[in-house]
Amino acid sequence: RCFHFCKLPGRVMGIRLLRFTSVVIIVLLLVAGALTALLPTIKDDKLPNSRREPKTQSQSALDSFTLIMQTYNRTDLLLKLLNHYQAIPQLHKVIVVWNNIGEKTPEEMWNSLGPHPVPVVFKVQTVNRMRNRLQNFPDLETKAVLMMDDDTLVSAHDLAFAFSVWQQFPEHIVGFVPRKHISTPSGVYSYGSFELQNPGFGNGDQYSMVLIGAAFFHSGYLEDFQQQPEAVYALIDETQNCDDIAMNFLVAKHTGKPSGVFVKPVDIRNLEKDTNSGYSGMWHRAEHLLQRSYCVNKLVNIYDGMPLKYSNIMISQFGFPNYANHKNKM
Amino acid sequence: RCFHFCKLPGRVMGIRLLRFTSVVIIVLLLVAGALTALLPTIKDDKLPNSRREPKTQSQSALDSFTLIMQTYNRTDLLLKLLNHYQAIPQLHKVIVVWNNIGEKTPEEMWNSLGPHPVPVVFKVQTVNRMRNRLQNFPDLETKAVLMMDDDTLVSAHDLAFAFSVWQQFPEHIVGFVPRKHISTPSGVYSYGSFELQNPGFGNGDQYSMVLIGAAFFHSGYLEDFQQQPEAVYALIDETQNCDDIAMNFLVAKHTGKPSGVFVKPVDIRNLEKDTNSGYSGMWHRAEHLLQRSYCVNKLVNIYDGMPLKYSNIMISQFGFPNYANHKNKM
Repeated sequence: RCFHFCKLPGRVMGIRLLRFTSVVIIVLLLVAGALTALLPTIKDDKLPNSRREPKTQSQSALDSFTLIMQTYNRTDLLLKLLNHYQAIPQLHKVIVVWNNIGEKTPEEMWNSLGPHPVPVVFKVQTVNRMRNRLQNFPDLETKAVLMMDDDTLVSAHDLAFAFSVWQQFPEHIVGFVPRKHISTPSGVYSYGSFELQNPGFGNGDQYSMVLIGAAFFHSGYLEDFQQQPEAVYALIDETQNCDDIAMNFLVAKHTGKPSGVFVKPVDIRNLEKDTNSGYSGMWHRAEHLLQRSYCVNKLVNIYDGMPLKYSNIMISQFGFPNYANHKNKM
Repeated sequence: RCFHFCKLPGRVMGIRLLRFTSVVIIVLLLVAGALTALLPTIKDDKLPNSRREPKTQSQSALDSFTLIMQTYNRTDLLLKLLNHYQAIPQLHKVIVVWNNIGEKTPEEMWNSLGPHPVPVVFKVQTVNRMRNRLQNFPDLETKAVLMMDDDTLVSAHDLAFAFSVWQQFPEHIVGFVPRKHISTPSGVYSYGSFELQNPGFGNGDQYSMVLIGAAFFHSGYLEDFQQQPEAVYALIDETQNCDDIAMNFLVAKHTGKPSGVFVKPVDIRNLEKDTNSGYSGMWHRAEHLLQRSYCVNKLVNIYDGMPLKYSNIMISQFGFPNYANHKNKM
């Protein structure tokens, strides 16, 4: 009980004022809290001129790549390779292009064997087409694509190095398999590898293509690929081949330079023989190489000219695997 | 004799007119001829933003390079090397920096043994300085410089290839001898080659310098070198060493990228042992490598930071000398 103190009118008003201000303060705090919760989250927008790429995982869009692997009738190889590739540093996500029409993907089994280092997305296709892997997948969040055939194993060391090279040559196809075209006196082009005659620009050989079945390239080229003449798609569908030659034409036209940069692989393996499916790749077909020469000439017609350019630059990793792999007699 | 014809006054005037007009025509022709001779010759000005580079020889300024070779006390090696280098395709001119103070150049003998494929200019020096070779020689007409030590033989094949690589990387030092610096826990830098620990960026080794004693670089860097802090010249003069380290600092600062691009030589030889002079290069001095570590730290002070960047790109020539030098088990 308060006597002399409580009876003063000022103090009574003081307590009422205190209550009032307390209520006001509490209401203000609640309002502030509500406003803070409603503020938009600040997104890490590194590339303002391109598609928004939210940093959904620990690696940003510039420092990582997306593996796109198309598969047909070799699920055992696919799963073996996924176990390897899923652990590559700087891998952001895997997109499996499922060309086994009507067959269930191994997604359930995949999930039951989790957790996995990165997300793997199975893109079910409706038609078994070679060019299915060249769609502009909305799942793509990175600037870089690593495209691999479903029977090719490239070591993590090679991939890490080639990715670093791609980052220095982002407008090129940076990969492990070089090929060339040559011109013949008749004006008809022929396609081949190093066993074919050199194009004759100085000594040594030249390459004018880097195959996309084991290569890094800019995801923007998948967008560009959707804008090509219909005849290109018809050619790829007719041959079920040559999508990689078409990509090299596209890139060469775009840059005005050699389309590819060849990185010499230390450890690259073809696992074809290891499959239980009995299925061997398209390149075993009798007409495979003839088709590719045919495609070169068709594409020259379609694009009204030969855009491919030669390069003789071969890139290796300094001091790896042998720390003195550059030593000389000096 | 003309009778009725000649007597006509009109005809007399006609002949006078004819003579007059003939004289006028002849005078006009002479004047025209004189004017034509006085017209300025049209110069092939390919690079309007740079120094005028008249096409004095069969190779233009962009497709050829100037060899700059400094020499001291090894004239027998110099002449042996000149016989080799003078025949390199795309060589425009040789500049010999004559550090044999007070000694006659072999110019007379050189001329008596002509003709030679390209001009060779002997630049007589007044003081024997390591950095004499880094002057901005007015004799330089090409964009590219090939700088070679006077005891180093590099094959024509290697040079042709490295020059083509330089043309694709004109802002870098493109050469055959990579070196690196490393950082130590104390913050003091050390200089070395592959026997030194790796800088620790991923696997394999890295290099952060390409020595200019066997390399191509842009002639503009000789201009830039004249604009460096006095302390840089003092350092090079004090050590009679490190001009190449200084150049790498300069280029790295200028580009913000690794200063050099390493091209793995197929055939590079040190001819030191072949000299009759009994003189061996500076690098045999006991303190040589210690000096170079010293220089790295001094230059970091002078430039207030470490501009050198690492690279692990090693470039070789595709299909040369072995046409299948890129073959793999696939």
